Amino acid sequence: MNFEEQIAELERGADEVLTRPDLVKKLKRGTPLHIKAGFDPTAPDLHLGHTVLLNKMRQFQQFGHNVTFLIGDFTGLIGDPSGRNATRPALSSEEIQANARTYEAQVFKILDKNRTRVDFNSRWLGKLSSADMIRLAAHYTVARMLERDDFSRRYKAGQPISIHEFLYPLAQGYDSVAMKADVELGGTDQKFNLLVGRSLQEAYGQEPQVVLTTPLLEGLDGVNKMSKSLGNYIGIAEDPDTMFGKVMSISDELMWRYFELLSFRPLAVIRALRQAAQEGRNPRDIKFELARELVARFHDAAAAERAQGEFIARFQGRGVPEKIDTVQLTLEGAPLRVANVLKSAGLVASTSEANRLIDQGGVRLGTDAASLAKLSSRDTTLTRGRYLLQVGKLRFVWVEIT
Amino acid sequence: MNFEEQIAELERGADEVLTRPDLVKKLKRGTPLHIKAGFDPTAPDLHLGHTVLLNKMRQFQQFGHNVTFLIGDFTGLIGDPSGRNATRPALSSEEIQANARTYEAQVFKILDKNRTRVDFNSRWLGKLSSADMIRLAAHYTVARMLERDDFSRRYKAGQPISIHEFLYPLAQGYDSVAMKADVELGGTDQKFNLLVGRSLQEAYGQEPQVVLTTPLLEGLDGVNKMSKSLGNYIGIAEDPDTMFGKVMSISDELMWRYFELLSFRPLAVIRALRQAAQEGRNPRDIKFELARELVARFHDAAAAERAQGEFIARFQGRGVPEKIDTVQLTLEGAPLRVANVLKSAGLVASTSEANRLIDQGGVRLGTDAASLAKLSSRDTTLTRGRYLLQVGKLRFVWVEIT
Repeated sequence: MNFEEQIAELERGADEVLTRPDLVKKLKRGTPLHIKAGFDPTAPDLHLGHTVLLNKMRQFQQFGHNVTFLIGDFTGLIGDPSGRNATRPALSSEEIQANARTYEAQVFKILDKNRTRVDFNSRWLGKLSSADMIRLAAHYTVARMLERDDFSRRYKAGQPISIHEFLYPLAQGYDSVAMKADVELGGTDQKFNLLVGRSLQEAYGQEPQVVLTTPLLEGLDGVNKMSKSLGNYIGIAEDPDTMFGKVMSISDELMWRYFELLSFRPLAVIRALRQAAQEGRNPRDIKFELARELVARFHDAAAAERAQGEFIARFQGRGVPEKIDTVQLTLEGAPLRVANVLKSAGLVASTSEANRLIDQGGVRLGTDAASLAKLSSRDTTLTRGRYLLQVGKLRFVWVEIT
Repeated sequence: MNFEEQIAELERGADEVLTRPDLVKKLKRGTPLHIKAGFDPTAPDLHLGHTVLLNKMRQFQQFGHNVTFLIGDFTGLIGDPSGRNATRPALSSEEIQANARTYEAQVFKILDKNRTRVDFNSRWLGKLSSADMIRLAAHYTVARMLERDDFSRRYKAGQPISIHEFLYPLAQGYDSVAMKADVELGGTDQKFNLLVGRSLQEAYGQEPQVVLTTPLLEGLDGVNKMSKSLGNYIGIAEDPDTMFGKVMSISDELMWRYFELLSFRPLAVIRALRQAAQEGRNPRDIKFELARELVARFHDAAAAERAQGEFIARFQGRGVPEKIDTVQLTLEGAPLRVANVLKSAGLVASTSEANRLIDQGGVRLGTDAASLAKLSSRDTTLTRGRYLLQVGKLRFVWVEIT
């Protein structure tokens, strides 16, 4: 890969690079750069959203650079000293070490162990004296700190900001000084803090780090960011079949976003896949490639093959057609009885026919092909949501009740 | 002295007591209180303005309480870490110790050595870790800190405030926690910082200290605060004659302010002196008592007596009358020739008479009785200012040129 291609790969999917000229200058030196990315010391349970950043770290490794997986244990050891956040108790060193091992078990499925250093910022922050902390705080102004979005919002709303909250971005920025980081990677929500690191390095007479932010990955719905609490996630520890099925459930549009942020295939290969899709290749088959790549990464290639076979057997073998019409219904008051839904959707001529078919076991209901199950009661009602209904062997319809 | 009289003495001259009920409660316990007052670690050269606070410390001592003369060496050891204030370099421990000895040589003319502990806040602040500093900073909010007058002004004016400047009031407040101070004394300009101490003690589960602020003493001019740079000061190391003469130069009105803030006489005695003045006693004689008290304090009683004798001999023995008229003149362009001034003041009939008298050595000029000296040249001119002119043995006039 030539230099321009390397730059393109490093910028791939990035939200911002501050600044690109600085990045080019550092890369042109030809010596391995020191890449920093910080992680919370709380127990991790990673999903694909978290791996966007790890993938970016991996890219730098592939181009010969060294990354530090920095666990921000210093603040974890302190907890929330204001006592306002009861969910943030101080962690013991043992807990932090255990969390670090949990991280390692997960992240080395992506990162190159030989080019990764796992470090803890308590190593240097814990050694700072109160006087050092004061000297550090002298390098940043109150007004600039109040420019951070959340601080600005809270200050204007009259919500309290404890002064120690101003010290955390400084401590995080000092990490870059202590590590002499060349590049710091982080989510877009970390941009302010990463820029503080850039300022502090200058204040301490170092060349300022390049800040590269990665976007928040959209979840399976393609709208909200991937998160455990929204349920729209793919956990990296999920079993092959679940993972494969979840990837297959995303829209064709979101698939390209996932290729950009999650696939290890070079940009040129992805461009070729896009070309093939435009020329008529079935998007489902391209999605198979993405699903196999991801399952292989977190399990292995054989598991990926098996998951694909399983997926085909389950959904295609069952005779669920690939093209199924969708019917939109509106909920006006009480939930809808299935018999009425079947009639509205045009699958039956009348509700009495529907009820008879239900009694005979000829109606199946699910939220997707995998969950289709025989309906046993006429009294089943549906509220807002997206359902797959099957009547007999051959009649299918997607029903969206809004 | 009964309890009410003690309270009255402690409140004497105080700017604010926060809060009086807290002070009463603490005093009523009947056990010695721990009184704190902080001082800069920079080389001191005290004048009477500084002694207002020391006098208040002494009053507490007289009522059986213990005071800590706290040298704020922690910040002195750091200097100005932002590098913006070149006049505030970091001091070495040796320099700070030397400054402490200079303080001691001066303040024990006022304070009772047996009830004074000289301490250094680096003893505890220097031991705090960066984590301790963060915990400390969690106890105060950005918004409250920005309420401090100078911070508020600078923030609104867009002038930078370094974050470490927010840490200093917290460090100073933590002194009160570490010392378990019952009362903190300070100048009115320190009020905000003293109240931070009160807050922090509460946050650390202690009974909050009482804050007692002392006013800034007016200088010899009775208008501006006493300061070296304005030249309106009485240094506590000045020789007896200078000190005595300076006290005698203040107005009768300012004399009562000095009695309140500088004299050790009880309020009852001062009330009696006021009564005597109202009944016709010469204010000059009352001022003699103040001047003698102050000279005796910083030198000794014999020196005070000698200084008074010297003062009387110099000013009264020389035949300068006590009542001298004042003539106001306005400077419109060039400085005024003495001959013209003498004519305008009505001391001579014509400028030629004035010039003849100057030639004969019959004219004396000074800024006060002590500095009167023979005028040797007709060409002497006067600009704006206040002058004493003498013609022959008996004619005197104050000339104020504005």
